[in-house]
This record gives sequence, C-alpha cells and structure tokens, in this order.
Amino acid sequence: MEHDKLYDLAVVGCGPAGLSAAINAAIRRKDLIILGSEFCSPKLHKAPRIDNYLGLPGVGGEELRQAALKHVAQFGLRVEPARVEAIIPLGDRFQLLTRTSLYEAKAAVLATGVVEVATLPGEEDFLGRGVSYCATCDGPLFGGQPVAVVSDIVEGEEEANYLADVAAEVYYLPLYKRSYKLNAKVTVLPARPRAIHGLTGVEGLELTDGTVLSVKGVFIIREATNPNRLVPGLDLNGTAIRVDREQRTNIPGLFAAGDCTGRPFQLAKAVGEGQVAALSAVRYLDQKK
Amino acid sequence: MEHDKLYDLAVVGCGPAGLSAAINAAIRRKDLIILGSEFCSPKLHKAPRIDNYLGLPGVGGEELRQAALKHVAQFGLRVEPARVEAIIPLGDRFQLLTRTSLYEAKAAVLATGVVEVATLPGEEDFLGRGVSYCATCDGPLFGGQPVAVVSDIVEGEEEANYLADVAAEVYYLPLYKRSYKLNAKVTVLPARPRAIHGLTGVEGLELTDGTVLSVKGVFIIREATNPNRLVPGLDLNGTAIRVDREQRTNIPGLFAAGDCTGRPFQLAKAVGEGQVAALSAVRYLDQKK
Repeated sequence: MEHDKLYDLAVVGCGPAGLSAAINAAIRRKDLIILGSEFCSPKLHKAPRIDNYLGLPGVGGEELRQAALKHVAQFGLRVEPARVEAIIPLGDRFQLLTRTSLYEAKAAVLATGVVEVATLPGEEDFLGRGVSYCATCDGPLFGGQPVAVVSDIVEGEEEANYLADVAAEVYYLPLYKRSYKLNAKVTVLPARPRAIHGLTGVEGLELTDGTVLSVKGVFIIREATNPNRLVPGLDLNGTAIRVDREQRTNIPGLFAAGDCTGRPFQLAKAVGEGQVAALSAVRYLDQKK
Repeated sequence: MEHDKLYDLAVVGCGPAGLSAAINAAIRRKDLIILGSEFCSPKLHKAPRIDNYLGLPGVGGEELRQAALKHVAQFGLRVEPARVEAIIPLGDRFQLLTRTSLYEAKAAVLATGVVEVATLPGEEDFLGRGVSYCATCDGPLFGGQPVAVVSDIVEGEEEANYLADVAAEVYYLPLYKRSYKLNAKVTVLPARPRAIHGLTGVEGLELTDGTVLSVKGVFIIREATNPNRLVPGLDLNGTAIRVDREQRTNIPGLFAAGDCTGRPFQLAKAVGEGQVAALSAVRYLDQKK
C-alpha cells in the first residue's frame, strides 16, 4: 500500500524517546506520524520501579508507559503499528518502508532503541523478575542478595562495581578478554552462562560446566545492535547512531534520540533527547520553507 | 567558614538539571552536596503549565517543583542555600567558594541555568569599570562611594548588606516582591533601572521614571551567573558552556547540564542532561579510584 501523504515528520519508535519527540513536534504544530511496534515499550512495561525520573519518584514502568501513551493521545496522536524495515533518504524527503507500506516524510526522528537479543534460556521469562539490563535502574531491588553480571563489554565492570555496593555478593562473568577494573567485592568467574533458572523469580544461573550459581538477580550487559541496516549511509559510533548535541545524524533531516544513540540507556536521557531531536527537526523544517 | 569535608560530587544549581543530577548520583551512592539558591527554580515556579514533559501532561510548574524537591528529599538530600561565586579546579578536586564558605569536591556538575533577562543598556560597556556581579569580589573598590544593587533574587540583600559596610551609600532595587532583611544603611528603592551612564566609568543609574541615581558602582545580582566568570578557563560556545555528548566540559571532572549548556531551554532536556552529567561524573570518579 502506498500512502500519498507527505508528512512533516516521521517518528520511528514509540518508546520514551519517540513519544517525547512526538509531543514536542505536535506542540510545534507539525503534521507527524509515529511508526512503532504494536506494544509500545516492552522495556518500560517490564521495569518494576523507576527511581530516577525527576518528579515521579518510584513510578512503576507500566504506570509511566500508560501515562506516556495518554499524553500522546491528548495531542490527537496515535501510534501506527508498523515495523520500519528501511529508510531511504531522497534529499527533500524520506521514504520509510515496511513490509506492506510506504510512508513519506520531510524529516525523521529515529528512536529505535536497542535490541537486547535474548540468547540465554530463561532470560526472556525472568525479565523484570530477576533479569535486568541496567544495574542503576534495578540494582537497588537486590539489596543484600547475591547477583551475577554477564557482560559482553567492558562497561559491564562499572555495573558490577556499582552492584558491589548494594548486593550481598556479585559474580562477574566477562564474555570478553582483557584485564578487569573491578571492586574487591566482585568475584570474577571465567565461565560462560548456560541458562537462568527459577520459579516465580530467578533462583540460579547455570554455567556451561554444570555449576549453578545461587543468585537472585542476573544482569546482562550487551552492546547495541547495528542500526545502519535501517538507513544506508548512516554514521555510527560503534553500534550507536552518531549524533551531535542537536541530535542530528550525518544525514540532513534525520535525527536520532534515546538508546539508539548510545549509553546511558536511561529514561530521562531518552525523554530529553527526544525533545531536542524534535525541536531540531522543527527548525530544519522551518528553514526549508 | 571552611568545610573540612571532601565530597565526591558538588552539584551547583537546584533547578531541574541540578536536581536530576543529584538523584542520579545518589542512586550511584556518591557522597554529594547540592549548592543552590534559597528558592529552587523560580523559573519552574512561574511556569503555569508544562505540556511537554513526557508522562505528566499539563503539569503545573509549581506542582512539578514540589514533586522534584520531594524526590530529592527521598534520597536524604537537601539543598544547601549557597551562592557559589567561584569554582577553582585544583586538578584532583574543586574548591567552591561562597561569600562565607568553602566547599570541596572531587567532581562537580554545573547546572547554573541561564540569564534570560535583557541586559541593561550600559551594563556590558561598564563591566569591570563600575558594573559588577559580585559584591565580595569588587565591593572593596567602592570604599566611601555611592553604589546601587539591582537584584532579581533575595540573595541580593546579603550583597547589599555587605556593601553597606564599605560604601558611602547603598541603594537597593529589588526586582522581586517580599519583605526585605536589610541593614539600616541600605535605602530600598521600589524602582526599575533603565540604563547605566558614565564616561570612563559608571556615573549614574537611570530609573524608568527618569531619575538618575548618582552612583559609582552598579552591582547586578541575577539568578544565573555567567559561567566563565564562575570557573576560570571554562570553554564556552557563545554564552553557553561547551559540553560534549557526555556533558563533559573542557575541564576534567567538571560537567554541565541544563540551560547553561545552551538551547533549547526546556525541562526534559535539562532533566536528561542532568542524568547524563551525573552518570559521567560517577564514571570519572570510579576511574580515579
């Protein structure tokens, strides 16, 4: 299906960054479309409690998700469930392709998040019930309990060090090789994980040698996936989309916000970047007039 | 008064960026101090309605201000009312000077807001030749001479009282409404300034009713301080503090967030930057261990 309409702005993604971009562009009276998944922000949905979004202490992830969707609805906007598979920059416009449709917009904001590919058996099942991707966000839930950190990347060490202040015991399983800068309280295990076990919550992390670590939390730290499959010619910084302080990518008219621009993978950062990206897009559109 | 304590982090400013930085550093268990004004965020207080802070559609500025202060209090933090007049980077720590105290911290986040009020005609011309932003620094230059203090904020009263000990005459022009705690030697003038006049130095302050006060010095006290007068050697971009995507300034260990880093002057941007600045400061502190 081809849509004849040329929107001012397409927002790709409906997590906190995308929705923040949408409300800010709507306030600036831009004609926009939000292309998102069917269920906006499973990550937010699964967050049991968010302590660091200023003004909403201890808000539940699902509560905030509902509030954000209601917020967007108040501007008469809704999320079009559409999985964007490619974005083609044509100079004066972008074509956004899904498997069945084509959308066109003069500018676009990418807020595609990071895909945390579940690889460990049990990972998906216990997400939000012992499995977490963010020590800052969920660490305090594991006060006085044993936890494990499985990390693909060196940044996992920071997460482990932070957890050492909170948890009873921290096992660190680095899936990379180099020297570690770890707090004395962290136990490095040169082992690979096989599966996460539990009943209502995480009870243990099984290693490939059959040992089971008795832990209540498993933190999994991975690098983001490549967004340059989505937009040909998009500049990356590692696997994150390279943006400047105005959230501009290297492609004129294309902006990015939230987790897809890199760490920290945090709510307030995403909401702030969504706002800046939208306002930069508005300026871009106004200058083209 | 000298404080013997060396904090991990000093947050300078208690608007949305400063408070967001504070809660994020507190979650990471850093020992921090917030140095702010007596009334945190008059700007937020005055906002009748905020439509673009995701999850809180149409929230009142005062309502959000109260919620933010409560949020900070939940981490056992309080704002120390202290007008920071200079920040001295000493390599391994920062000294933060107020008129009466000295604080020390290993890292600092500047969240000092922005001066949005139009500068007075003549203000720029006579800066350093009669116009000053700091009574402690420049007061002694006006011994036995008449001066005026133009203040947006209650902290201007302290400056005026200090000048009363030094100057021949002190006129105080409060640009806010409440009762004043002023030394008997200070003359309150319920008038607004129009321009600063002089030849090689300040000769008079003209009021909107046409009167000209014969003064040799004009002290202008505003909510935000121009950042490069606060920190020697700080890189600016126009009048904004130059920061990178991690909110780092050019001075190691010094971060900045919110309006002081430039446009857009928006709440969500400030909250997001406060978070990123705090997490970057945490990383800086952890790497120095």
